[in-house]
Amino acid sequence: MRALVFDGQLHLETSLPVPQPKDGDSLLKIRRAGVCNTDLELVDGMYGFSGILGHEFVADVTQGQPDLIGKRVVGEISVVCGKCDFCQRGIPSQCRNRTTVGIRRYPGAFADYLLLPPRNLHLVPDKISDDEAVFVEPLAAALQVTEAVHISPRDRVVVIGVGKLGMLVAQVLKLTGADVVGIVRREKQAKLLNQWGIASAELKDIPEQSAQVVVDVTGLAQGFADALNLVESRGTIILKSTYNGFPQVDMTQVAVREIKVIGSRCGPFDAALRLLERGLIDVTSLIENRYPFDSAVEAMATAAQPGKLKVLLDF
Amino acid sequence: MRALVFDGQLHLETSLPVPQPKDGDSLLKIRRAGVCNTDLELVDGMYGFSGILGHEFVADVTQGQPDLIGKRVVGEISVVCGKCDFCQRGIPSQCRNRTTVGIRRYPGAFADYLLLPPRNLHLVPDKISDDEAVFVEPLAAALQVTEAVHISPRDRVVVIGVGKLGMLVAQVLKLTGADVVGIVRREKQAKLLNQWGIASAELKDIPEQSAQVVVDVTGLAQGFADALNLVESRGTIILKSTYNGFPQVDMTQVAVREIKVIGSRCGPFDAALRLLERGLIDVTSLIENRYPFDSAVEAMATAAQPGKLKVLLDF
Repeated sequence: MRALVFDGQLHLETSLPVPQPKDGDSLLKIRRAGVCNTDLELVDGMYGFSGILGHEFVADVTQGQPDLIGKRVVGEISVVCGKCDFCQRGIPSQCRNRTTVGIRRYPGAFADYLLLPPRNLHLVPDKISDDEAVFVEPLAAALQVTEAVHISPRDRVVVIGVGKLGMLVAQVLKLTGADVVGIVRREKQAKLLNQWGIASAELKDIPEQSAQVVVDVTGLAQGFADALNLVESRGTIILKSTYNGFPQVDMTQVAVREIKVIGSRCGPFDAALRLLERGLIDVTSLIENRYPFDSAVEAMATAAQPGKLKVLLDF
Repeated sequence: MRALVFDGQLHLETSLPVPQPKDGDSLLKIRRAGVCNTDLELVDGMYGFSGILGHEFVADVTQGQPDLIGKRVVGEISVVCGKCDFCQRGIPSQCRNRTTVGIRRYPGAFADYLLLPPRNLHLVPDKISDDEAVFVEPLAAALQVTEAVHISPRDRVVVIGVGKLGMLVAQVLKLTGADVVGIVRREKQAKLLNQWGIASAELKDIPEQSAQVVVDVTGLAQGFADALNLVESRGTIILKSTYNGFPQVDMTQVAVREIKVIGSRCGPFDAALRLLERGLIDVTSLIENRYPFDSAVEAMATAAQPGKLKVLLDF
């Protein structure tokens, strides 16, 4: 099979063996996949990653548990033990023994085939297109913001870094009725936000210490510094990105102004599927480029362009 | 009057004018004061501080509001506007227009006299000695940890940095019934903790990701890194110290493991006074040195010795 591999160099393999199901795993044939910033960071050296990239996808089940065969599915990316205290507490996304599809010690979805345990799979309703289904994983991650902090319609919430993921976060936050503002640096960002009825502003236009909640989707030291300036004392900053290296952080300000900084990882697939089925989140406007999988290396280069939104891979 | 001044150099002034009460302020004659790590950090350059140091004290009221004259008091260190949204919400410690005694734009208590608004003052019950009363401010700060996070007897709580303030934090946490462990580097620390029935351990003896809550009282990048290693996913790290500069922080781990980092500043004086009056917190065991105020410069040098606990100044 074909697979996009990073082993210090990014290259398309064309004759890897198709993985064989065991331990009850399902074999998935990938239909479509999306490039995430995490993929770009792994290629930049994060986690010392080596292997098949990719974790946003929609696929058909071709082997494994009989009732799933032929179904169109999306898949949760944490492959878990089911036995540790976090799994037992119903928080498998923090399983102590987890591996992560295309990120840590588990092959990714930028390949013709992928094995996953049936517990990771969610059926995709017919009403959701392949293009939309590719966004279930990042939309679920965006929904996790509302798990980390209670947001009410009285709150001002600022989103910094309205890229691929930040655009989903902004739409999810809009559902809460809060006063949501996305910090934009490009006309394209403002246009998208405004078409969804979400306010946009430049950083300089937001008063300092005026937001109850700031979601930092930049993964940059400067993004966090901006978040600290915007959040009011006792407010909350949600971290929705990974970072390249260890940023320098004004921890004195966190301490003295009693700010909460809360990390946020994977989120609820079932809620993401429901929101897409009901048409409450617009994901297709985020698609900017589409490549056949044979051009996956080129697709990654395109995805890495500044300000680029979603790039899809067609299998 | 005498005052310990830092203006790039630390020196004792001996003939400053006694401040005159206006706007209803009370004039306090300082009886005893304590040296805090923040004092040492200010002398190291934090906030570009210049002025009279000191914010832990017990004093007699000598002028101002008649019913207070002659009373023995301790004082909250945030001097607030009473009008901003934080003051109106009952969170004066985060007043948007606050100054801070001996820390930011307000003279400190390492002086014969200090002015404070009556709203900042708390009467000290007779049962509480001067030595104990000096600890009301840091004990209140320690109590603020239990405002920031709900701690239950099921939790394992680790305190990193069991110095002057950390020792108070550990005692406060013990009151919750949680499994409290102080990370010690010196025999003296272990002995004190154990005499209060609090467990002590070296860092290497605590399993990684085993604590629901870690309180970092070190103010050091390494302390926060240790806290990240000790806290379980979805756990809470409380920041109870200021930092010299901007430490480098593994924010990716905060994000991916969905950790909460919560800053904690000043706390409730009334609760601190009540706990001292009931004998529930041992503060006098923390006193290691005592200097007449004329030797305040020497006292500061002693307080800066590694592992030094509380140094008092007698007026």
